[in-house]
Amino acid sequence: MGQRRHAGKTIAEVGEFNFLARLIPRLRAGRRTVVGPGQDCALVRGPGGLLLTVDALVEGVHFQREWLSAHQLGRRSYLVNASDIAAMGGTPLFLLASLGVPPAYAARDLSQLHAGLLRAAREHGAQVVGGNLTRAAALFVSVTLVGAAPRRIVTRRGARVGDRLYVTGTLGDAALAWRLLGRRHRAAPALVQRFREPSPRLRAGRFLVERGIVSAMIDVSDGIVQDLGHICAESGVGALIDTSRVPLSTAYRAVMADDVRLALHGGEDYELLCTVPPPNVRSLDRARPRLGCSITEIGEITATRRVELVNGDGTRYVPAAQGYDHFRIRPGAAASPGRRTLGFER
Amino acid sequence: MGQRRHAGKTIAEVGEFNFLARLIPRLRAGRRTVVGPGQDCALVRGPGGLLLTVDALVEGVHFQREWLSAHQLGRRSYLVNASDIAAMGGTPLFLLASLGVPPAYAARDLSQLHAGLLRAAREHGAQVVGGNLTRAAALFVSVTLVGAAPRRIVTRRGARVGDRLYVTGTLGDAALAWRLLGRRHRAAPALVQRFREPSPRLRAGRFLVERGIVSAMIDVSDGIVQDLGHICAESGVGALIDTSRVPLSTAYRAVMADDVRLALHGGEDYELLCTVPPPNVRSLDRARPRLGCSITEIGEITATRRVELVNGDGTRYVPAAQGYDHFRIRPGAAASPGRRTLGFER
Repeated sequence: MGQRRHAGKTIAEVGEFNFLARLIPRLRAGRRTVVGPGQDCALVRGPGGLLLTVDALVEGVHFQREWLSAHQLGRRSYLVNASDIAAMGGTPLFLLASLGVPPAYAARDLSQLHAGLLRAAREHGAQVVGGNLTRAAALFVSVTLVGAAPRRIVTRRGARVGDRLYVTGTLGDAALAWRLLGRRHRAAPALVQRFREPSPRLRAGRFLVERGIVSAMIDVSDGIVQDLGHICAESGVGALIDTSRVPLSTAYRAVMADDVRLALHGGEDYELLCTVPPPNVRSLDRARPRLGCSITEIGEITATRRVELVNGDGTRYVPAAQGYDHFRIRPGAAASPGRRTLGFER
Repeated sequence: MGQRRHAGKTIAEVGEFNFLARLIPRLRAGRRTVVGPGQDCALVRGPGGLLLTVDALVEGVHFQREWLSAHQLGRRSYLVNASDIAAMGGTPLFLLASLGVPPAYAARDLSQLHAGLLRAAREHGAQVVGGNLTRAAALFVSVTLVGAAPRRIVTRRGARVGDRLYVTGTLGDAALAWRLLGRRHRAAPALVQRFREPSPRLRAGRFLVERGIVSAMIDVSDGIVQDLGHICAESGVGALIDTSRVPLSTAYRAVMADDVRLALHGGEDYELLCTVPPPNVRSLDRARPRLGCSITEIGEITATRRVELVNGDGTRYVPAAQGYDHFRIRPGAAASPGRRTLGFER
């Protein structure tokens, strides 16, 4: 791992090429890799249909360094990308990591970051085939993931009025952990773990797409209301979420009781949100044991062309807050911290 | 282009989703694109052999904002990647852009950046199929490029003792521009243009690889001595560069006369450096009119296992400076600015 020789040194002291010279031999080539890392490009044998996705984690925006070990950060930067592949029913194959690293960053931490990325990718059979390492004022990890496409194509565009709305796992855990960590409050390990290590629903995604069960699918990264909004906009439909059916974990309920706002708007869930035509609901129910995670019906697709919510008591309303926008400043937000309850910074 | 509606607004005021909603329809799908941008992943039909590469430009490290318009930055962030595809003899097909943008960055500039990226890619027949946009303290543009591999494979590993050493174009122009801009000196337009707009040698790269002319190839991004060092290390050989034969532009000579140091160590050239077995030299000479650029013999591969230089007067020496390392601190560099003549910051 070259860890001992890097012990206590910053990346500036070790140097880019020295660091890479130790890193690259650790990247084993896969069956489809013709030319591995360390050349100008990797050369791989791709399948006919390729899924391509990229996602970046930026220090101070997506995480604070004290919230995640370098190894956890590496894992996470792969896992959030794998979630995008899951949403299209694909299988991760190759990845490239583009890292921006402050000169004072410890070389050992950079090794750990890479090790976390590598190990997480390997657990899904994916190979790191290349990357780029540069200096930057704040740490960033941008991962490009190439996946094998399934035979069917499911996007955000296929939802039809009357389709049932489902979501995997539980919502709001990571957003709650984020909020507690950001305020230096104690957060239950179960919540922190959900922030640190998202579970891309690859098995569920593949199964739901390959069996033709879902009509539209997206991964929930910016909050379910926001991401459902994308499905509605692209499919030309609306949706109604029954907030009493939104799946919440025990750890979430222990802090938030029945307050579902973080589950609706918080983001960082990396669960799958999908629409299921009524004739396919029986197939979905039969598939449950094979998905590798729970899946919960939370509403339906409507003709309203907007996302609406209905409470347990039957009150129906349009949510004011949508979800997370990396840039959007909400009017008055700065003047009134109270209005920012949900607007925590990422 | 949505430019009018963004006029004078920062990206924070426009918001991530508003910005993307205007951007994404501008990304036309290509022949191989099954699902274009705006979904969790792009779905493309790849060729059998794929080249994958990623490169990032970071504000304050690779450029200062006043040196490049946003459009030029977009172009450049594609072109430096295309140079890696050229070095493997490939053809650019798909790209994904991962952008980190300060909230106060003008939305109009971000549109221009994207437009520059798009237009440059289209000139080579490549399509933007996806991306990611996030907040960051300093602007970064990380581009992943997927290319079609040629039928032959040429890497940095194939150089053999006795092979002739060739380089395309001229060296040192971009590094000189960088240095002059960094010191707020006047730089000739020809030099600045070479920094702003590298010319990836795609045609030359493809031809040299497909015709089996070259035994090893790399693109010169960190200075020819450094990059030749990679060929030597990976091929288990040495090399001798005749410094009097290093191709210099008229604009370079006008400032530097015969001082070749920036041409040897400066970086940012994005020319191709390749090794040619002696029996292939005639094929190379016949190919010259078809390469789209000049190509100059500058030395040979030796058995010394290191890069050596020979001056016009026959003096042979091992260069102290290699090339650019994004992190490496040279001992005494901070204490003695005089020693940093070549160590300008990027």
